[in-house]
Amino acid sequence: MSCTQYQGSSPERPDDVFRRDAARKKAVTKYTQPAAANGSSKTGKPPGIQQEKQFMKFVAASLLAITCLATPAQSTFINTLMPQPQHITVANGRLLLTDSFRIETGASHNPILQRATERLLQRLQAKTALQLTSGAGTPTLHITVDDSTATRPVFGQDESYSLKVEANGIQLHAKTIFGAMYGMETLFQLLQGSGKDFFFPTATIDDAPRFPWRGLMIDPGRHFLSVDTVLRTIDGMAATKLNVLHWHLTEDQGFRIESKRFPKLHQLGSNGQYYTQEQIKQVIAYATDRGIRVLPEFDMPGHTTTWMVAYPELGSRKSGATYTIADSNGVKDPVFDPTKESTYKFLDAYFAEMTALFPDEYMHIGGDENNGKDWGANADIQAYMKAHNIPSAEALQTAFNHRLQTIVTKYHKKMVGWDEILQPDLPPDVIIQNWHGPEFLINAAKQGHQGFLSQPFYLDHMRSAEEVYSYDPIPAGSNLTPAQAKLVLGGEICMWGEQVDDLAIDSRIWPRGAVIAERFWSPATTRDVADMYRRLGPMQLRLDALGLQNISGPQRGLRQLAGPNPAEQQALATFDSVLQPVDFHERYAEQHTGPSTPFGRLVDFTVPDPPMRYEFGRMVSNYLDPGTNNQRAAAYAELKSVLQQWQSAANTVDDIAQHSPLVAEEQQRRQQFHQLATMGLEALERLQSRRLNDTAWIATQKQILAEAGKHTELVDFVILKPMQQLVDATQQ
Amino acid sequence: MSCTQYQGSSPERPDDVFRRDAARKKAVTKYTQPAAANGSSKTGKPPGIQQEKQFMKFVAASLLAITCLATPAQSTFINTLMPQPQHITVANGRLLLTDSFRIETGASHNPILQRATERLLQRLQAKTALQLTSGAGTPTLHITVDDSTATRPVFGQDESYSLKVEANGIQLHAKTIFGAMYGMETLFQLLQGSGKDFFFPTATIDDAPRFPWRGLMIDPGRHFLSVDTVLRTIDGMAATKLNVLHWHLTEDQGFRIESKRFPKLHQLGSNGQYYTQEQIKQVIAYATDRGIRVLPEFDMPGHTTTWMVAYPELGSRKSGATYTIADSNGVKDPVFDPTKESTYKFLDAYFAEMTALFPDEYMHIGGDENNGKDWGANADIQAYMKAHNIPSAEALQTAFNHRLQTIVTKYHKKMVGWDEILQPDLPPDVIIQNWHGPEFLINAAKQGHQGFLSQPFYLDHMRSAEEVYSYDPIPAGSNLTPAQAKLVLGGEICMWGEQVDDLAIDSRIWPRGAVIAERFWSPATTRDVADMYRRLGPMQLRLDALGLQNISGPQRGLRQLAGPNPAEQQALATFDSVLQPVDFHERYAEQHTGPSTPFGRLVDFTVPDPPMRYEFGRMVSNYLDPGTNNQRAAAYAELKSVLQQWQSAANTVDDIAQHSPLVAEEQQRRQQFHQLATMGLEALERLQSRRLNDTAWIATQKQILAEAGKHTELVDFVILKPMQQLVDATQQ
Repeated sequence: MSCTQYQGSSPERPDDVFRRDAARKKAVTKYTQPAAANGSSKTGKPPGIQQEKQFMKFVAASLLAITCLATPAQSTFINTLMPQPQHITVANGRLLLTDSFRIETGASHNPILQRATERLLQRLQAKTALQLTSGAGTPTLHITVDDSTATRPVFGQDESYSLKVEANGIQLHAKTIFGAMYGMETLFQLLQGSGKDFFFPTATIDDAPRFPWRGLMIDPGRHFLSVDTVLRTIDGMAATKLNVLHWHLTEDQGFRIESKRFPKLHQLGSNGQYYTQEQIKQVIAYATDRGIRVLPEFDMPGHTTTWMVAYPELGSRKSGATYTIADSNGVKDPVFDPTKESTYKFLDAYFAEMTALFPDEYMHIGGDENNGKDWGANADIQAYMKAHNIPSAEALQTAFNHRLQTIVTKYHKKMVGWDEILQPDLPPDVIIQNWHGPEFLINAAKQGHQGFLSQPFYLDHMRSAEEVYSYDPIPAGSNLTPAQAKLVLGGEICMWGEQVDDLAIDSRIWPRGAVIAERFWSPATTRDVADMYRRLGPMQLRLDALGLQNISGPQRGLRQLAGPNPAEQQALATFDSVLQPVDFHERYAEQHTGPSTPFGRLVDFTVPDPPMRYEFGRMVSNYLDPGTNNQRAAAYAELKSVLQQWQSAANTVDDIAQHSPLVAEEQQRRQQFHQLATMGLEALERLQSRRLNDTAWIATQKQILAEAGKHTELVDFVILKPMQQLVDATQQ
Repeated sequence: MSCTQYQGSSPERPDDVFRRDAARKKAVTKYTQPAAANGSSKTGKPPGIQQEKQFMKFVAASLLAITCLATPAQSTFINTLMPQPQHITVANGRLLLTDSFRIETGASHNPILQRATERLLQRLQAKTALQLTSGAGTPTLHITVDDSTATRPVFGQDESYSLKVEANGIQLHAKTIFGAMYGMETLFQLLQGSGKDFFFPTATIDDAPRFPWRGLMIDPGRHFLSVDTVLRTIDGMAATKLNVLHWHLTEDQGFRIESKRFPKLHQLGSNGQYYTQEQIKQVIAYATDRGIRVLPEFDMPGHTTTWMVAYPELGSRKSGATYTIADSNGVKDPVFDPTKESTYKFLDAYFAEMTALFPDEYMHIGGDENNGKDWGANADIQAYMKAHNIPSAEALQTAFNHRLQTIVTKYHKKMVGWDEILQPDLPPDVIIQNWHGPEFLINAAKQGHQGFLSQPFYLDHMRSAEEVYSYDPIPAGSNLTPAQAKLVLGGEICMWGEQVDDLAIDSRIWPRGAVIAERFWSPATTRDVADMYRRLGPMQLRLDALGLQNISGPQRGLRQLAGPNPAEQQALATFDSVLQPVDFHERYAEQHTGPSTPFGRLVDFTVPDPPMRYEFGRMVSNYLDPGTNNQRAAAYAELKSVLQQWQSAANTVDDIAQHSPLVAEEQQRRQQFHQLATMGLEALERLQSRRLNDTAWIATQKQILAEAGKHTELVDFVILKPMQQLVDATQQ
């Protein structure tokens, strides 16, 4: 049945497909998704080559809508899969989804797998309103698993699967139940609608992840995150094939996990917001059911103020010193005293409890950002270092880590830690979480150390999806041997907690997290930005359907600021569509965000990398560099309409500011929104009427752009570069 | 300081205010809320009086924006309170809300009250992004409570409060902590914004509910409702000053509460979805904290299939009969056997457990819809009736109720039951829940029985807010003595569970629930429909801010149906804005909804009484009956713009139907949407150009309207009456 093979998103293959398939363009475009549908790719393409750009537009418009010409087409497959699979072969048939759809797992029975099939039925039912049951009937989806004995996901397990959809049934085969679950997720993403029918396109998919460590770190230490938030985040991870939830549980600002052995830790070390052990178990069970490992982090020897609030004797200050929960962010001085045996005795007892609670083989011990101040100020510690020939704070921390390693090993766990723990005699089974930059990770691999990449994936840096997509755990030119490359385990998305809480976290993580997850899963050659944005729209809706607040949260926040008038709600959304939050550092500089800073300003409902960033760039590019006069006229009309909407919205937003203080406070941004809309319209009219080279006007616009480009009022404009292009175009 | 007194929403007083205040209209309208802002009232006004209509428009536009003329205005108070208080006196000052806002409860300390003050701070903080603490500082809000010893709300407690906002502080006084909580809710609703400031307008409010029983019934029996849903429903109740959560826990389709004494009840009597006793306690604690009583219902002797699934011997069928959980809706035959002592022994043991679990003094024992069939078919029961001179099934049920009453009384509870339990010798402390119509309730009161009203407030009948608002527990002309009127305790909103689940329930209950809650709380004279709709917009947003899904839920559902294209999302929302769900009976007739029917069709994301119903009526009325030529031109432009949007949306919705089967299935409604938009535009052009009396065209339109008026595809148009008026206007 197969007729067209498409491997990953390698830029050559799909182009081939579309050159061949060009005649079918019309039939295909009807079904294409709108997000960036006409966008030109910004990556990997030499600029200025008109023919190539035109072709890319065509590719972006119809990419991966694959059909066979050999037989009558029954199905137009739209590839909206995210992450992209390794291999996909598409035929031209379809399997109709009806209420007789049944799943059988046969001899591969496993309760986790069983529950996964029930979730699949529930999601299909919610999407289609078909009444689907797990009852008797001829099976449609046959799942076979070679070894179905797993009780939880483990590092390095086989995650591959193969999925074959034919007109009369679906075969899903995997080596483990977790591979089968990935296959089910892919199957769900294949579902399409056509007229009154839901169907799966016939296709064969062979898939496996590029990297075995695909994590997401969340940080309830700085701002507590409810169990609900954690659970729905896990739902998002499962939908994007991530497999490690890294849970940063202890911080200077809050100790977030119950200890039955040392209850003062959570009682005194938090504001009352912590996870009970029952809740921890609930989260682990929920994650396990979705193939996700839970990696707890107990950050030490620094980031430990809250341990010492409960047990000051653990700290490095003089006897009798007291500690208080940090009420600000940043690196703090409190640090464990590594020279006292009592410290290790305590940690041994604590890890005895925690290693029993968390089933995963790995335990994260942090190890980052110890400033060494409290060690330097303690004469006993200094004397100890002298007596034991320990030359520096780094060396003292290494000694601490060795003791820690012994304890952790005693409880059958392997260690994970941040960059700083990488010291010459680090045992080889320790994993380094890289946050100082990819080159550090590559160098570590060359020295034989396992590690994974984080820093480019710090979500509070507010990088665009396009930018995070461009980073790779093994960047081009790394020159690793295959054995060294294997030491690069993958990466972790990091959602630090200083500036998010339950309210805003979903739209900070998603949909960008899905884009990074694709980087961790799909072939390195899968890098077409326009196609990524095209698939991101459907993926964003899948996350939304799971109950995540990635869309609902910002929408609710904005309408709360706008008030009940629908026209004002619309206008504020339009204003917000050209903004994104300033990055972490800038926000800290402006607002001095601390653990008690209330969120709920415009910035908290403003999403990073809003679609308008990419869209406006596309519109300007279409206008400035069109193919034909007709295309130019269409591009002009589109651009003018958007700019007029902005101008009108700017007026309405000023009306909102009369009654909504949190809109009123965006004083400069509101004024600049007026100016930018006007600038765009004026540039457009000057270009249309060829009134060029008005140096005074151009100078004024550049000044406005320079002002609008400064960080202020917690939000940045995302439309300045294309706007600058419009202004520049009037100078010839 | 006070200058203007406004009592309730009595139609005369505010008019007086505005006649006096007409000069300030301009300053005021800037702040008015949009919902139905220009709507004319449909209640209490003789039709056709042009002057009055115009005046009502003006009133609606600026209603309750009250200022003093005597001193320089500092504050323009916009009354968006819902429910309206009994008495409000407004001065022209304001108290700025700053981060120094503090609450003190002084000698009135009570942990429930304390938590309520913390919730108030949290809500204010979320709304303003001001960092508010419960720490030390000069208090701003002084709360005094005469008797602060309450540990839970009880029927008949004093719920009054008085609230005095002055420029330098706020005094809240109540007799009970629950009265104080109502005062805090009112204070929260008073919060306004102006420029960069949040403020409370200076005002004095004396308030108390009209009725002591203000309930909401939810029915997890038919479709289970998660604890989360129950908790957020309680949040909505607290915000609307409702005080009884009536929890319909046992049904033919599901036994939803854990019994430790008889675990087979929830184990065999449900599909695994039930509330554990821990969860029940959690819900009661949550409700108690918000001044809400939890009234459990154990419906008997009918509606009891699931009891008999577990314990067939409780039923009236012959020994050895088995029962299965009902997989359809409607009245079922299974019924307790009231002739066996073992039945009462069982119920005694069961109520021993349940009365200990639920602290409220009342317990609902159902008593409705026993069809008597299983009694009639059982020879032993017939013989018993003969032997004991019991002439009818009704009489047998009365006998059963007497035994039940004895058991319930033994455990210190009073009984509540549906209409059917009202039999001649009913004890006076039993409360009747009326579902057969208000006249039944009034007659019961005349016979000395306590009762409350339900049936007009059945939400699945899909009545408009305007209609539910018009019903009264004591309708005009009831002619009750004051003592008899006191027997009418209030009412209950009923959200039956046949056709809702967690997904759709919020937008079925809210915002209509808030309108009914006002009927239960506010003076009987508070009935201005335009003003109610004006206040409903802000109230809808307050519910949304609490985390309810009243707005987010339908929005999410619609975008899931539309797919990721923003233009298609917008078009589907426009289509949906002219629709509402068919009522319960019609949906059952079309779809045969049962306990396993999946929801997720368009109807499930379509809200009852969408704003467009009222708005389109207002627009047509403005156009057909304008004051001046200018007003007619404006009304024409508004109407034409809306109709053109519909026409454009109808095309886009057809595009969606290509790829979205659940939109495709709305075949007739989509076609009719095209026809109606065209009809409106054609009527408009005919009226503008005076091309009148085209009988062929008119006949065609009437046919289209008749077709569009038929129930089909689970949704009804809400715009047909005004559309008919437009068509009729072309015939003169």
